[in-house]
Amino acid sequence: MASAQIAAGADYLDVNAGAGGSGNEEDLMEWLVDTVQAVSNKALVIDSAEPKVVEAGLRRCQDRTAIINSITAEPRRLEALSPLVVDYDAEVIALAMDERGIPDSTEGRINACDRIAQRLTALGIPLHKILFDPMVLPIGVDSKVGITTLNALEQIKSRYVQARTTLGLSNISYGLPNREIINRMFLIMAMYAGLDSAIVDPLDSKLMNSIKVGEMLLGRDPFCKDYLAAHRRGQFKE
Amino acid sequence: MASAQIAAGADYLDVNAGAGGSGNEEDLMEWLVDTVQAVSNKALVIDSAEPKVVEAGLRRCQDRTAIINSITAEPRRLEALSPLVVDYDAEVIALAMDERGIPDSTEGRINACDRIAQRLTALGIPLHKILFDPMVLPIGVDSKVGITTLNALEQIKSRYVQARTTLGLSNISYGLPNREIINRMFLIMAMYAGLDSAIVDPLDSKLMNSIKVGEMLLGRDPFCKDYLAAHRRGQFKE
Repeated sequence: MASAQIAAGADYLDVNAGAGGSGNEEDLMEWLVDTVQAVSNKALVIDSAEPKVVEAGLRRCQDRTAIINSITAEPRRLEALSPLVVDYDAEVIALAMDERGIPDSTEGRINACDRIAQRLTALGIPLHKILFDPMVLPIGVDSKVGITTLNALEQIKSRYVQARTTLGLSNISYGLPNREIINRMFLIMAMYAGLDSAIVDPLDSKLMNSIKVGEMLLGRDPFCKDYLAAHRRGQFKE
Repeated sequence: MASAQIAAGADYLDVNAGAGGSGNEEDLMEWLVDTVQAVSNKALVIDSAEPKVVEAGLRRCQDRTAIINSITAEPRRLEALSPLVVDYDAEVIALAMDERGIPDSTEGRINACDRIAQRLTALGIPLHKILFDPMVLPIGVDSKVGITTLNALEQIKSRYVQARTTLGLSNISYGLPNREIINRMFLIMAMYAGLDSAIVDPLDSKLMNSIKVGEMLLGRDPFCKDYLAAHRRGQFKE
């Protein structure tokens, strides 16, 4: 799976060893990191809510950028995971949520980011090591959630210029039909609003094509060189 | 063609009688307006650079909104067409360009809009009758043209809150392969930036689907009702 995702254009690989009760998550994370490293030199995203599991993964990472996925403004989680960012010189995904969950309002999400940024910078972690995730909820639940996320994204970008942003994209379409189309369109809006990266399925070729077109439209592909090369490779056949 | 475009979801129909030298454009415009009106009660967009042709079309419009397409800040065109907006109680598309062509910079385009707005409001035309078009050039010519257009769009929206915006979308992809994909992605970005309407081919079903998804993501489709109805009609089969 790792090899296929790299071939499809993934820049980072998210590894999550959540096993739903079978097996020890620390052991599984170690196996997962070893296995993926054997076929790839890409940066790894160590994905667990459990500090012990995160540390098990980080300890195994050899000579490459590791990103912790994720911390929140929840004090217990923030206190447990922040030191690992320092100890392993890692980068970290910071979710715009706190002990009460995901705030409904843009302001609430910015507040959560502020609390995380304060804590991390107090530990000497520079902003460029943080990837803020403004959080996205299913649009089927409340028609305003898309706008709330995009507005939070814009505000985070202007407030924390040196930080980067990311998004667990597919939540937006949860429970609706034709999820891929919704995901693509929301990704394109988010790219314009300031999204630097996203957690997506790199095997979704139409989504990857959308990213390429989005980069071109945002002026990041001089002479449309990458776009035209992808076209010549036949990537845009639908 | 008019019937097919209405069935596909067009809200306005653009009529352009440019005949490339064969036939009299005024006569053709009259025929075109009569013919389209016979099958539709949609608003008509009277599309010509020639004031005489525009007036011939407006004179024929019966009991419906007519939109003049288009004026610019070019003094000769502005002086000739502005009175028609008043006389026929029309709406008008105002292109962000002047006698020197389409300005390269966002500021230049805003200046052109300012000149048009000053002239039209001096004649008593309210801003809500104006549709500003920030103008889009081919991204294949210069990688920054997309961003320039989107920035101009955002600034027009915040400067002229009561006015609406439109865009001749497909210029963005001129000269590139897979134009439909580029058009869709740029439309979605522009919708987030504040686009209220666009001149598009309503028979491009993927583009029309993108608009539906975009409206939903921007919070304009409570309970995803329109989206789900379109899905049940089978519109999202790809």
